[in-house]
Amino acid sequence: MSTTIPHPDFSAERFARAPDARFEPAPADGVLPEGFFSTTNLPTYVRVGGRWRMPREPRMDCALVLDANGELWTREGRRVRQGERVAMGQAEDGSQGVYVHASWLAGGAEGEFKFMTSEVSREKPIDYARMARLLVEERERGGYPVWVTGPALVHSRARADMTWFVANGFVKALLAGNAVAVHDIEASIFGTTLGMSGAGEATSGGHGLHMRAINQVRGAGSIAKAVERGLIQDGIMHACVVHGVPFVLTGSIRDDGPLPDVVTDNLAAQDAMRRHTVKATMAVMIATALHAIATGNMLPSFCTETDGSLRELATICVDSSEFVVSKLKDRGTHQAFGVVTNAQDFLHILRLFVERELASRTASR
Amino acid sequence: MSTTIPHPDFSAERFARAPDARFEPAPADGVLPEGFFSTTNLPTYVRVGGRWRMPREPRMDCALVLDANGELWTREGRRVRQGERVAMGQAEDGSQGVYVHASWLAGGAEGEFKFMTSEVSREKPIDYARMARLLVEERERGGYPVWVTGPALVHSRARADMTWFVANGFVKALLAGNAVAVHDIEASIFGTTLGMSGAGEATSGGHGLHMRAINQVRGAGSIAKAVERGLIQDGIMHACVVHGVPFVLTGSIRDDGPLPDVVTDNLAAQDAMRRHTVKATMAVMIATALHAIATGNMLPSFCTETDGSLRELATICVDSSEFVVSKLKDRGTHQAFGVVTNAQDFLHILRLFVERELASRTASR
Amino acid sequence: MSTTIPHPDFSAERFARAPDARFEPAPADGVLPEGFFSTTNLPTYVRVGGRWRMPREPRMDCALVLDANGELWTREGRRVRQGERVAMGQAEDGSQGVYVHASWLAGGAEGEFKFMTSEVSREKPIDYARMARLLVEERERGGYPVWVTGPALVHSRARADMTWFVANGFVKALLAGNAVAVHDIEASIFGTTLGMSGAGEATSGGHGLHMRAINQVRGAGSIAKAVERGLIQDGIMHACVVHGVPFVLTGSIRDDGPLPDVVTDNLAAQDAMRRHTVKATMAVMIATALHAIATGNMLPSFCTETDGSLRELATICVDSSEFVVSKLKDRGTHQAFGVVTNAQDFLHILRLFVERELASRTASR
Amino acid sequence: MSTTIPHPDFSAERFARAPDARFEPAPADGVLPEGFFSTTNLPTYVRVGGRWRMPREPRMDCALVLDANGELWTREGRRVRQGERVAMGQAEDGSQGVYVHASWLAGGAEGEFKFMTSEVSREKPIDYARMARLLVEERERGGYPVWVTGPALVHSRARADMTWFVANGFVKALLAGNAVAVHDIEASIFGTTLGMSGAGEATSGGHGLHMRAINQVRGAGSIAKAVERGLIQDGIMHACVVHGVPFVLTGSIRDDGPLPDVVTDNLAAQDAMRRHTVKATMAVMIATALHAIATGNMLPSFCTETDGSLRELATICVDSSEFVVSKLKDRGTHQAFGVVTNAQDFLHILRLFVERELASRTASR
Repeated sequence: MSTTIPHPDFSAERFARAPDARFEPAPADGVLPEGFFSTTNLPTYVRVGGRWRMPREPRMDCALVLDANGELWTREGRRVRQGERVAMGQAEDGSQGVYVHASWLAGGAEGEFKFMTSEVSREKPIDYARMARLLVEERERGGYPVWVTGPALVHSRARADMTWFVANGFVKALLAGNAVAVHDIEASIFGTTLGMSGAGEATSGGHGLHMRAINQVRGAGSIAKAVERGLIQDGIMHACVVHGVPFVLTGSIRDDGPLPDVVTDNLAAQDAMRRHTVKATMAVMIATALHAIATGNMLPSFCTETDGSLRELATICVDSSEFVVSKLKDRGTHQAFGVVTNAQDFLHILRLFVERELASRTASR
Repeated sequence: MSTTIPHPDFSAERFARAPDARFEPAPADGVLPEGFFSTTNLPTYVRVGGRWRMPREPRMDCALVLDANGELWTREGRRVRQGERVAMGQAEDGSQGVYVHASWLAGGAEGEFKFMTSEVSREKPIDYARMARLLVEERERGGYPVWVTGPALVHSRARADMTWFVANGFVKALLAGNAVAVHDIEASIFGTTLGMSGAGEATSGGHGLHMRAINQVRGAGSIAKAVERGLIQDGIMHACVVHGVPFVLTGSIRDDGPLPDVVTDNLAAQDAMRRHTVKATMAVMIATALHAIATGNMLPSFCTETDGSLRELATICVDSSEFVVSKLKDRGTHQAFGVVTNAQDFLHILRLFVERELASRTASR
Repeated sequence: MSTTIPHPDFSAERFARAPDARFEPAPADGVLPEGFFSTTNLPTYVRVGGRWRMPREPRMDCALVLDANGELWTREGRRVRQGERVAMGQAEDGSQGVYVHASWLAGGAEGEFKFMTSEVSREKPIDYARMARLLVEERERGGYPVWVTGPALVHSRARADMTWFVANGFVKALLAGNAVAVHDIEASIFGTTLGMSGAGEATSGGHGLHMRAINQVRGAGSIAKAVERGLIQDGIMHACVVHGVPFVLTGSIRDDGPLPDVVTDNLAAQDAMRRHTVKATMAVMIATALHAIATGNMLPSFCTETDGSLRELATICVDSSEFVVSKLKDRGTHQAFGVVTNAQDFLHILRLFVERELASRTASR
Repeated sequence: MSTTIPHPDFSAERFARAPDARFEPAPADGVLPEGFFSTTNLPTYVRVGGRWRMPREPRMDCALVLDANGELWTREGRRVRQGERVAMGQAEDGSQGVYVHASWLAGGAEGEFKFMTSEVSREKPIDYARMARLLVEERERGGYPVWVTGPALVHSRARADMTWFVANGFVKALLAGNAVAVHDIEASIFGTTLGMSGAGEATSGGHGLHMRAINQVRGAGSIAKAVERGLIQDGIMHACVVHGVPFVLTGSIRDDGPLPDVVTDNLAAQDAMRRHTVKATMAVMIATALHAIATGNMLPSFCTETDGSLRELATICVDSSEFVVSKLKDRGTHQAFGVVTNAQDFLHILRLFVERELASRTASR
């Protein structure tokens, strides 16, 4: 938290060769000359009259001003007066007379001051086009994308979008828990999820509906049989059954019921999941901490092509907060690419981009 | 945290009139008869032989079983054996022989056990169709929707969508801070936001770009003049200038620069904001805690129609977490309707739905 | 989102009887008379000359000013000039001439404008004294407090505090997952948790240590045997074994190992948990979503005293964010009392307060 | 998201020199030999018979098993049978016959698989002892620790602890907003914060109390005068006035009032803050995004000792979620050390540790 920072060795060749910093007058009060040097919060050295000097009052996002007394200041642009001499240049390596001492930061290795270096942040753009392209390419090359989802997908309108992905060949295996199937089936039979209407209102008598849905499937014997009998007529599980997409419903202590298809023993469940993860060429994890981390534990960070070459295993992890993705990385799944958003919105836009990608491929043929 | 709960007064008329609970045999092991009573975690009383009795081992999501010895149990469906007698009915008010004692919960007033009663949750569906309809109706009736936005809108692809809303008459006033305009203009001039590329990568030398953008506008004198001179050629601020949508950029201690248009005194800034909030008929707040709460403080919970009648002032608050909306409500803006998602995705889908709403209105004419 | 609000019926008795509002002059520029009426954002009516009128430009946190032209304004205190007439009183029910129309908010029932009405918020004080008192009382009366914990308790210094609670009779049963025990035992054998030192640094070779800890206990046959053999010499599991506190370690698909004591079948695990929840007189849930919600599902909202009377089952739920508590409530555990903080800090302060409570009881004897 | 990973060059000296991996039989079903190699999810190569081979079904937290057919498998310990041959050793650099290919991860530089590498996480231990030591050392050497706080400190019991730090010389300057002072003074005059009692309940009529507190101080003319007149008799602002600790209250558009001491112009406020940050030798930021980032913008990442040497400027940032610290880092304050907890609990424990540190220093003299 409070280490000593050695000054750079200015006798080194690169510094010896460097020119003095160049200064230009500010064109107006509060306006800097185009091409001004913009400061960082790191130790900074300016070469003036052959000597490397540190400006006073250091801070980021400022200009460097050489005053009439030869004193160097770090100053906000708005406080610079017309005619004051302002340091120029963008190079931070000393080659234009300003050196920003960044190497002590990252253990000596790299060294540039940057914003937005965190790995996962809701403030970063989401590159849907790239994810859509990956999904389409996986389908074309016959890859094995494994989807791992939490119940948020079903609680909301995302159910239709997820069904679309299953029905259209983008999902080779679905790994989920009892709740995903329960609420999907509750929606199919009763039109609610966890007793909540599609508009998000708690309904009267609604708290028992998921129990009634479970009971009906238990009566039928399995999800496939409930589909066969017409009990379940739409939705994600219906699509899996109809399109032959394998699913593994793993149990947890939080489960109601459970549905007859649920693997209640965790070791058997892990084995069932792993039969899919060993084949995975891509993973899409949406709105689930438990299943995402469980799958992350099993997933190599790479997959092997048929020619023996290795490729990073594209792993997309979507959650409402940065926490799940950071946790996934903290548990060793470093390759995870985090998307911080609402699961419902994610799926809707992803589908949109996949449809566009497909349309553009058709068009360009 | 630990209050006493009085038993209901079973001498009351409504209980005296009630029938005994009806029981039916379970059709198979682990399967309940259709129409079974599904339990809650509240004190529950079952009328058997004219007496109101509490079942043992109470919990939610179970069946009520009357065993051979006349003992009543709360039991998970999976543990019920074929032929065991299960209580039937959905009524919780005693009228079918089962009474769920819920009134002590909400201070005696209301009384039904429900799931998903929280006001703001990422697990609730987002009703984009309704919001789109509201926006279109506001435009049609000449309302005054005020938009309040944080910089997340600009950091990402949402910039194009926000520009679209401004250009198409859905925004009557834009309330924001220096950063929104800075990054929007940085994107217009340099193609980055906070030095980050559109794909979310930190760029080399990028940390100074927002300072250079600010400096250029300071040189021009104002955003409008920078648009005029062709310095700013697209984006949100450009659309405001070109379409005559008023904006208030209020300062904060976090600001770099600031841009010449920023109202740096907070009292003057509050007065400038309030000139718009007194006219507001709707508010859309996206990805900003500071500005959302500041605006919430000024905003009445209602607006007055020309005929003198009152209408709740539709207030949509979008944020990545439940926290900002809860805080807004905790600061008195109870009418706020919370949407928990990524700002970029929100705007993209909202635009899609507004376009659909417009298309359907055109079609139906 | 946008409902019509009916005006109150001012012909009602209570309004007919009400006096005109009283106004007093502001003592100085920007200073209001003591006892001024402080506004809300709700529809507000002021009785002036026998008529109920709505002030212009409504907002909260303002004064009501009657200007020289008889116009009523809602105005920020800082904008009020010396001598301007300001409405007085605190009553919002019309009895002092000002009526705040709040009843339409909560479905007609209640009606007062309040801040901080959310149920769970990091901005609320945490009443450790009350929780400490509850725990001590439970121990004195021989209650059955069930603790449900996640691994955050072990990852950090909280391990010593949790051990203290177990060793001192405040825990009648511990419900947790494999990870809690694994990291507690890893800490006992290797001094790390998930390969991280007590100072939070990732250690070299650390990623395998939890696997080695698991393997050693698997070799011993059970946690109790590993304690017996001296393999595990301190910590939470050690305290449970030594003090005869029953624990249920329930499995999940995320588990490594697992330890031999883990109940790997979820239905068997639920049954094992329920053997404790049916006896529970209090529940303390710390830093776990899965186990907290699983336990919440099983827990009645009340417990029955030996004299047959009912008492709300004190349920404390501690988590880093409001989300888990809200989710618990959304899943029906309405009685949960949420504490938003870091698990490590929670336990440390709770122990401090329990020790104080014990000391004060000893002293007062 | 999906890059190609080159195989290592096994003709290199270090690989050529390496021995074959050593295998030992598992001592029992599901138990591995002590010293087994524990896998990662990275490409892994095992030297068998002089050839580097990749085991099948790679994943982390497993053993490597060489079966009777000479096939290499990655297998969960629980699935290993007695007598099966398990790879031994902890070295991952090939020196014991197993090579983990990690260098492609971090751009080629470093290369070890680790857990818990995220910079800020609620799952990391909080080193209060170290922070306490830093604070005490700063006081001893006459440093200039700047504290930056949000209103959460006052909303809760932390008020007494913060007052203690001010009164005891650990705070050289307090940077905060209007709300901190308003609620501190509301607590002093009315015993509530934002109308909420110390137990966190919304009080009747409470919503106006902060306005009444503000109005009284406006009447007095300044906080210092209100202290002088006995209007404010305790709390944080009282301690600042009485102990001569300078404070800067900077305005924001969210402010009610504001108090007469608030610097309402943001540029003047930045200048006032900077007069303290240029002297700072340490920064403690608690429960504020706006002020933390504003201060972070102004703060160098280092401070200069009297002998001209540089030291990293210890910057502690406390918040309920990882977000603020990540944002601070994303805005360039890379040196920030994040503590994820509740502000109230943080201050209480920090004070405890500072008191212990002081006691231990006294004792050791």
